[in-house]
Amino acid sequence: MNSFGRIFRVSIFGESHGPAVGIVIDGCPSGVALTADDFTTDIERRKGGTQKGTTPRQETDAPIFQTGIFRDKTTGAPLTIMFENKNTRSSDYEKQRSFPRPGHADFVASKKFGSNEDFRGGGHFSGRLTVCIVAAGVVAKKVLKNISVTAKILEIGGEQDLEKGLQKAIDAKDSVGGIVECTVTGLPIGLGEPFFDSVESLISHAAFSIPAVKGIEFGAGFQAAKMFGVDHNDAIIDANGRTATNNAGGVVGGISNGNDLVFRVAIKPTSSTPKEQESLNWETGEVEKFSIKGRHDLCIALRVPPVLEAVTAMVLADLMLLENKISRVAG
Amino acid sequence: MNSFGRIFRVSIFGESHGPAVGIVIDGCPSGVALTADDFTTDIERRKGGTQKGTTPRQETDAPIFQTGIFRDKTTGAPLTIMFENKNTRSSDYEKQRSFPRPGHADFVASKKFGSNEDFRGGGHFSGRLTVCIVAAGVVAKKVLKNISVTAKILEIGGEQDLEKGLQKAIDAKDSVGGIVECTVTGLPIGLGEPFFDSVESLISHAAFSIPAVKGIEFGAGFQAAKMFGVDHNDAIIDANGRTATNNAGGVVGGISNGNDLVFRVAIKPTSSTPKEQESLNWETGEVEKFSIKGRHDLCIALRVPPVLEAVTAMVLADLMLLENKISRVAG
Amino acid sequence: MNSFGRIFRVSIFGESHGPAVGIVIDGCPSGVALTADDFTTDIERRKGGTQKGTTPRQETDAPIFQTGIFRDKTTGAPLTIMFENKNTRSSDYEKQRSFPRPGHADFVASKKFGSNEDFRGGGHFSGRLTVCIVAAGVVAKKVLKNISVTAKILEIGGEQDLEKGLQKAIDAKDSVGGIVECTVTGLPIGLGEPFFDSVESLISHAAFSIPAVKGIEFGAGFQAAKMFGVDHNDAIIDANGRTATNNAGGVVGGISNGNDLVFRVAIKPTSSTPKEQESLNWETGEVEKFSIKGRHDLCIALRVPPVLEAVTAMVLADLMLLENKISRVAG
Amino acid sequence: MNSFGRIFRVSIFGESHGPAVGIVIDGCPSGVALTADDFTTDIERRKGGTQKGTTPRQETDAPIFQTGIFRDKTTGAPLTIMFENKNTRSSDYEKQRSFPRPGHADFVASKKFGSNEDFRGGGHFSGRLTVCIVAAGVVAKKVLKNISVTAKILEIGGEQDLEKGLQKAIDAKDSVGGIVECTVTGLPIGLGEPFFDSVESLISHAAFSIPAVKGIEFGAGFQAAKMFGVDHNDAIIDANGRTATNNAGGVVGGISNGNDLVFRVAIKPTSSTPKEQESLNWETGEVEKFSIKGRHDLCIALRVPPVLEAVTAMVLADLMLLENKISRVAG
Repeated sequence: MNSFGRIFRVSIFGESHGPAVGIVIDGCPSGVALTADDFTTDIERRKGGTQKGTTPRQETDAPIFQTGIFRDKTTGAPLTIMFENKNTRSSDYEKQRSFPRPGHADFVASKKFGSNEDFRGGGHFSGRLTVCIVAAGVVAKKVLKNISVTAKILEIGGEQDLEKGLQKAIDAKDSVGGIVECTVTGLPIGLGEPFFDSVESLISHAAFSIPAVKGIEFGAGFQAAKMFGVDHNDAIIDANGRTATNNAGGVVGGISNGNDLVFRVAIKPTSSTPKEQESLNWETGEVEKFSIKGRHDLCIALRVPPVLEAVTAMVLADLMLLENKISRVAG
Repeated sequence: MNSFGRIFRVSIFGESHGPAVGIVIDGCPSGVALTADDFTTDIERRKGGTQKGTTPRQETDAPIFQTGIFRDKTTGAPLTIMFENKNTRSSDYEKQRSFPRPGHADFVASKKFGSNEDFRGGGHFSGRLTVCIVAAGVVAKKVLKNISVTAKILEIGGEQDLEKGLQKAIDAKDSVGGIVECTVTGLPIGLGEPFFDSVESLISHAAFSIPAVKGIEFGAGFQAAKMFGVDHNDAIIDANGRTATNNAGGVVGGISNGNDLVFRVAIKPTSSTPKEQESLNWETGEVEKFSIKGRHDLCIALRVPPVLEAVTAMVLADLMLLENKISRVAG
Repeated sequence: MNSFGRIFRVSIFGESHGPAVGIVIDGCPSGVALTADDFTTDIERRKGGTQKGTTPRQETDAPIFQTGIFRDKTTGAPLTIMFENKNTRSSDYEKQRSFPRPGHADFVASKKFGSNEDFRGGGHFSGRLTVCIVAAGVVAKKVLKNISVTAKILEIGGEQDLEKGLQKAIDAKDSVGGIVECTVTGLPIGLGEPFFDSVESLISHAAFSIPAVKGIEFGAGFQAAKMFGVDHNDAIIDANGRTATNNAGGVVGGISNGNDLVFRVAIKPTSSTPKEQESLNWETGEVEKFSIKGRHDLCIALRVPPVLEAVTAMVLADLMLLENKISRVAG
Repeated sequence: MNSFGRIFRVSIFGESHGPAVGIVIDGCPSGVALTADDFTTDIERRKGGTQKGTTPRQETDAPIFQTGIFRDKTTGAPLTIMFENKNTRSSDYEKQRSFPRPGHADFVASKKFGSNEDFRGGGHFSGRLTVCIVAAGVVAKKVLKNISVTAKILEIGGEQDLEKGLQKAIDAKDSVGGIVECTVTGLPIGLGEPFFDSVESLISHAAFSIPAVKGIEFGAGFQAAKMFGVDHNDAIIDANGRTATNNAGGVVGGISNGNDLVFRVAIKPTSSTPKEQESLNWETGEVEKFSIKGRHDLCIALRVPPVLEAVTAMVLADLMLLENKISRVAG
């Protein structure tokens, strides 16, 4: 379904080329101060066109508060925020309709929803909806108050020098992937459950809702698989549970341990590469060469950090409310 | 919470050193043939003591059917299966109570549940509960019929030669981690949702409920972050959606695409290493050296395959029922 | 929370005097034909001003499709429908702010959400939101196809002659309650569960989400409490489960039995009576006389039938999808 | 499904004639003191055989704690309690297998679950499972601490003199129904939500999970439908929200208002009347006369009070935890 969270529950809706996209947040505490300005930074960070390698499509992306806000504060009723889709060029997509684009949802969406899906710009399967997730994240971060959630790019196209990685893509006239790391400081001990609702379970569930994420690892992650136990174990060094190292990434037995929550996600290269590709032509039934038109990012990973922060903040706001660490009446 | 799934919903309960552990499966189709013999293989695969490097603790682990079975078939009512805990030595754990073991849940459990947790053998936070998960998986696999779910170890202690990896641990008198890969064949196209309930979201949610899992990647996974788009994209080569490569690991846009579902998990080294460690002594308030007693695995990854198959099968049974691909009356 | 349903999941949002109210339906099958005209009848039935005894406030109440519709059919993505609030007179409510109105949520809302609630016109606690529920019902009824859901008023102000009951209210310059009955024909056998998700549990859960409902009974209902078993039992008279009588109201053991589903709800008199009342004045701290201004219904029961049909259809669409009796791809 | 609650989540399982019935409570706070003695009173109240008009089947009904308890306190891990089925006479039921009993789930269960249901004693559809619900209620009441939940019989067979009502049944050699009222004192203001999760929605959802409940009304209930607004409205008389009357039954706008929560349920006569009945014979395909054998209650309403208290306490424990009015660490 298109909802996530048990107490702080976010629902997203919309299509790339419909009138609007948006979110409803149910269970948001009342009394959270909120104005359009609060959204500017993260929405700009997510937006294409300001960085080398991102799509020239420009949306104003001003949040429109529809419900749940009164006198610039949340009321405790469902909070609805919408974003108009102004700058769409559906004709780009009509032309490509005969080719289900490799790496995109075209083929599976058509199988799943039959002939009725809105194929324009990927429809509901569009990265456009991440603006909604970012907006939910802005609210969630405000709810979290003294907990900081920060994501940054570690690597582009296999290069830690990000300019270099991007230039590789430009030179190759192809798209590239990247790695993004998220760090959360200020978390209390005790969030999460031992099995099905471990912190890792919930964070990964949320992180894989971001298009193009293909892997996630906590703390030492995949490197842990190559370590000895005595090297991996984080020695506890004080009564607050602080550890000397943080190979666990802040989660032990599924539960937050009071150290920084640290995890990384792998972002695949943008599926819409400018390069010529081969794939099935639905009309001819043959595998043929074709090129993708439209405006696309060379490296979608550049836009991921605020989205990753957002889903992380959503999970944590939910857990903090669930564990009574945050009041449902904020102010 | 200790439940997972929306239609095929599994709840687990129990402690390492209590009278029993068990599961309830709600929403299991009626008419699934089920006898104790069906559980033998997977329970043996999970069990310690048969492989170099696993714990000598031996449980009989015979499933006890309590409810939901009549004349060797599921009835459609909640299916309850229990396993007695026979072979426990709680005294081992009493001695270590003053040290919250690094890498274990001792510290966080005590903070989360106060003074009332059952600390013996990790209590509810014990790997013992994976026998329940394995049992749920046996049922889920039967429900899935023609879909095959197979996990295997790829790497132990950084070595693809597993014997060698294990010997490394034995020589070092330390524990080691490993990597386990799961492959699912026979999945239909169209399972999952574009965002919060993507197949990757659900599988990762379930996989991180297995103790010691610290990372997961689908298809090319973290390697995808270093690839060009044209190399990563899987060309569609026939009308059934078959692709020439499988870098996506069988999931595009969050939805199964009819190719094999392939993913890998990183398993950290067993926290209970026989090596001397340092950590906080709760009683003295000092960081001190100590050693863990008790019976433990040198490499917990050896026991993970049937557990990973189990959680995967649980997710897929749920999705297949949700999408009406499997009937709620099996026979 | 403000959502209902597991597969066909309806979320409502909005306030009486905010810019708009609306719904998101997640899990609506794709391919359901839907135009604004489909909503006219039920929205008119619900609307005030056309009947003696209903409020003169007039909303245009044209549904605005925001997402999930393409070429006049649902796409399978979340379906968002909004209704603008055009005709509001908030000043009416400002004056009464010192009196928490008896029978209204003013007092409890203020305690629950603190000082941040939107008190204008009852805010989120307004009957205005039932237009959203009616819209969800229109969609649900289309999904249900050959199942008919019909509600009618049985009694107004204690009178089965409805004109007479209404005249009573007009003469007394007071509001009155009523009883509404809902009948569903064409249901298959087997919906619902024995205990927590019995058909009665789900229908009553939904029915009590309608403001002013204070009781519900199925089949013989409260009368059953006075009957002998042999008179209450409905003899099964054919292999399809048809019964000679329908004292069970179509539900046995929590499960639909293939006969008509029949239930009645009791609607309290509109809380906003034009009569002078006594209640606490928040400012003076004294119990004082006061009168409610604003535009209100003499008998809210008159507007309930399409809302009751709507919540009933929502429950049944959800159950039909859950039990695989309706496909998630409608056409 | 067979679970209820979001934070304090109760799952029930078992069949009338299987080895055992039981519950798992997930989300129970840690530190709740619990011994078998705590269950005696309510289990005795529910039990047949001690009152005129109840079934002579006797179960010892001693709760068996399987998980989640350590040193006589809950640990915060899932709490499992089981009850053995010792005193079963399945042969009684085999004989009647050809007649789907009117008023029972025999017919619908067979249609819903196919040929695999456990028909003995109603299988999972048995009132036997209410012992599980009662046990969950005992725990919930302990969690609720200073909130009192009390149910009592108001009427049997249409008579407020209960002896007289019961004698009517004995004289008629038939079963009779009844009315049970539940009162909750000590509730805080602010539980519940305006629409789908109103207190009435949640309580009614739970109440209709009790077999034989066919109606529910809050406060003035169905009588409210006949009242004028000025008479029905409860004047607020102090700053704590106390009202002069309680026609609302303690719930306004879906939210608890701090006054007593009062509601009544209608219980149908026991379906298993000793009287001769007519119904379809599955084998002959004809409607024929038959009599029900086995041990049954003349008036099932006599056993309902502790069950009604239990489901009410479950709902309220869940709401209190959800609203942070009760801590997840009790002691």
